[in-house]
Amino acid sequence: MANTDSVNIRVLSLNCWGIRYVSKHTAQRYAMIGDMLCKEEHDVVLLQEVWSEKDYLFLKKKLACSHPHSHHFKSGVIGSGLAIFSKHRIHETFLYRYSLNGYPYMAQHGDWFGGKAVGMAVLKFGSLTANVYVTHLHAEYCRDKDSYLPHRVVQAWELQQFVRHTSVGADVVILGGDLNMHPQDLGNRLLLSYTGLRDSYLEAAKFDGCENGMTLVADNPFICKKELAPFEKGIRIDYILFKGSSKTDVYCDFMSTTKGSVPDHPFPYSDHEALTSVLRLETERDGPRTSKNPDSAAGKLAELVDIVTEARTEVKVGLHCAERMRYTASRTGVMGLALLFLELAIAAVPWLALGAEQPFPRTSFYLLAALCFAILTATALLYVFYTTELKSLQGAEDQMRLAVGSLQEKLRGFPLALPHDAHLRPPPAGQGPEE
Amino acid sequence: MANTDSVNIRVLSLNCWGIRYVSKHTAQRYAMIGDMLCKEEHDVVLLQEVWSEKDYLFLKKKLACSHPHSHHFKSGVIGSGLAIFSKHRIHETFLYRYSLNGYPYMAQHGDWFGGKAVGMAVLKFGSLTANVYVTHLHAEYCRDKDSYLPHRVVQAWELQQFVRHTSVGADVVILGGDLNMHPQDLGNRLLLSYTGLRDSYLEAAKFDGCENGMTLVADNPFICKKELAPFEKGIRIDYILFKGSSKTDVYCDFMSTTKGSVPDHPFPYSDHEALTSVLRLETERDGPRTSKNPDSAAGKLAELVDIVTEARTEVKVGLHCAERMRYTASRTGVMGLALLFLELAIAAVPWLALGAEQPFPRTSFYLLAALCFAILTATALLYVFYTTELKSLQGAEDQMRLAVGSLQEKLRGFPLALPHDAHLRPPPAGQGPEE
Repeated sequence: MANTDSVNIRVLSLNCWGIRYVSKHTAQRYAMIGDMLCKEEHDVVLLQEVWSEKDYLFLKKKLACSHPHSHHFKSGVIGSGLAIFSKHRIHETFLYRYSLNGYPYMAQHGDWFGGKAVGMAVLKFGSLTANVYVTHLHAEYCRDKDSYLPHRVVQAWELQQFVRHTSVGADVVILGGDLNMHPQDLGNRLLLSYTGLRDSYLEAAKFDGCENGMTLVADNPFICKKELAPFEKGIRIDYILFKGSSKTDVYCDFMSTTKGSVPDHPFPYSDHEALTSVLRLETERDGPRTSKNPDSAAGKLAELVDIVTEARTEVKVGLHCAERMRYTASRTGVMGLALLFLELAIAAVPWLALGAEQPFPRTSFYLLAALCFAILTATALLYVFYTTELKSLQGAEDQMRLAVGSLQEKLRGFPLALPHDAHLRPPPAGQGPEE
Repeated sequence: MANTDSVNIRVLSLNCWGIRYVSKHTAQRYAMIGDMLCKEEHDVVLLQEVWSEKDYLFLKKKLACSHPHSHHFKSGVIGSGLAIFSKHRIHETFLYRYSLNGYPYMAQHGDWFGGKAVGMAVLKFGSLTANVYVTHLHAEYCRDKDSYLPHRVVQAWELQQFVRHTSVGADVVILGGDLNMHPQDLGNRLLLSYTGLRDSYLEAAKFDGCENGMTLVADNPFICKKELAPFEKGIRIDYILFKGSSKTDVYCDFMSTTKGSVPDHPFPYSDHEALTSVLRLETERDGPRTSKNPDSAAGKLAELVDIVTEARTEVKVGLHCAERMRYTASRTGVMGLALLFLELAIAAVPWLALGAEQPFPRTSFYLLAALCFAILTATALLYVFYTTELKSLQGAEDQMRLAVGSLQEKLRGFPLALPHDAHLRPPPAGQGPEE
């Protein structure tokens, strides 16, 4: 211990539920959130659902002293809703927009308009480079028949790709946000296994907060209890994840969540609970550690292969569904076109038989024509939309296939060879990557 | 030299101009391209504008022996058009979609529908990890009045971010593609300065190809000479860029381009020329090199600050333009709405004065109403589109502001302190990142 430098970092993550004119008591809640953040002075604050630029600017003004550095990630029609406030200078930011995010015609769910994404900020804690990520995945509206599952799995896939590929040079990696996934959900397992990120709640030496670390609790007055069923007490879908590097060890000394009510206030900060993790970063002065257990590495790889294969299956289900929807859209479009031709033909008969009286009432004629055009426009837009969805799903499926091939090859290198030598051996016949 | 391992890698990049039913002689040209690739056996082949899945599958079948590994990057409505073929196993791929890519109503230019992106593939050359990127930026249709310039600058910005952040762990970085930028264009300078990538054409020890390395030559029968004006002979807009790492030095021993005509064939491979670079990767066995000249590093940083500032100005121009367009769209929409109300009012007068004759001819009434609805729909869609464009431009501008602040702080650390210590000194008053 004498040979290590230690830094403590406090991180907060909160879904602010900041839908103007829809969310309840938005202004008062932002004032409460601002007061709390000002007082608590976390090193890094990761917020979701800060949909309005005005609300972000309100917080920015309020936190000018405690958190002089901030960034609001912009994306889509109404923004990504993601914001970061920091005591430490933000050196850079980068945004990755998920390729899939629900359906535009599901306006009541609204996710599509939000431009869901993962935002990254590069900070420095002393001499340590930290990559901090904030994200918000597509909501789950019905657990039994979750039509958005393939979209969320693809989002989790892209999230792990983004984090893994962009965090190679970082000493510390922190990810906070509303993942809309239960701890054992496929997307969550995919994210944690592939990136090596660890869950603050599971790792915390000490925890103070809602039972089972729940972040969406049934007692919250803003929550419709019916929607939580069959989870009577609540669910855990918000996370603060972290990992270190060869240079730095990270430990979670303490984790807490808010517990619904706020003293001296009639309602809580949001419909979600806020999470706070106290992370201890330890840097060994003697240089990078080298500890690897090939057996456990092989076991983890095998588990990862299973998880990616499961994700691939889920994406394939989404592919079939999108293909069926596109087919329905095109069939409806063809029917609209046929109806239009039929109408024109009926109208044309007396016109061709010069002088004959027009039997088609004018009003009905125009209304029917307008209906046909509406059907054609809607189905054309849907066709284009489903084509885009198909491309994204196929793309993710292709990437997963390649990844599984590569992981399996690596796995074949255990325990005889080290992972980075695995590529030197030819794969067994019939097991090429293009299977 | 005795202490280094050396590997030679041959890379090809070609924009295939593969728009089905629009491009000329597509099938024959793909057959020619396939024959050439099969014979030449490049290590890595980076293709752009492979729009059709069928054409990709045709090439995949044809190159099954020479290039057993391949990936077609899927995105947008008709795909990204990007493909990679490799002699070496592709371990992973990842796709970043640019946030801006032209306008959907500019259908004659078609870029918007293409889902332009940058694709990344992780390969291994022996023990070296190589990150290979392929991309295609928005075309330039009129150099004097280039309304797409802000979009292309934002694409170049996102491209450099993606390459820089995802390539930290790579021993070798290779980027090939049709950048649609001249060598001295802002986007190109931004990409090269920020990432440290080097231009094969400028670095090649030996070059054989079109004059000045041009890749879009006036003699090409598929090119409209008028569009090239004022560049009579042609322009250089396709590139193969590369860089090494602390572990690996990369040199370009030879570079060539095709020269328009192909022996025994009546037309060339494409409207672009194909580029081939022979890269020599040298790994020092004694471990990483450490050579840094603080003076030249400071000079480069200062140059980078200027370039990012220039890019920020260009994005601001785009912002003003998008704001104006959105304003025009909303004004037109309001006028459409006013027209509809006026029409309804005129029609309602006789209806209210019961029994009076309807002075409005039915046909005109319905046609006018349809026109109003069409105006309203179109302007609503445009308003949404311009809002998305504004968000993306604002996002890029925010990121550039942060980056300039961070770079300037780094710069203030020269030559007294090394760059990685710069953050320890407080910035001078009034120069915070939020200026």
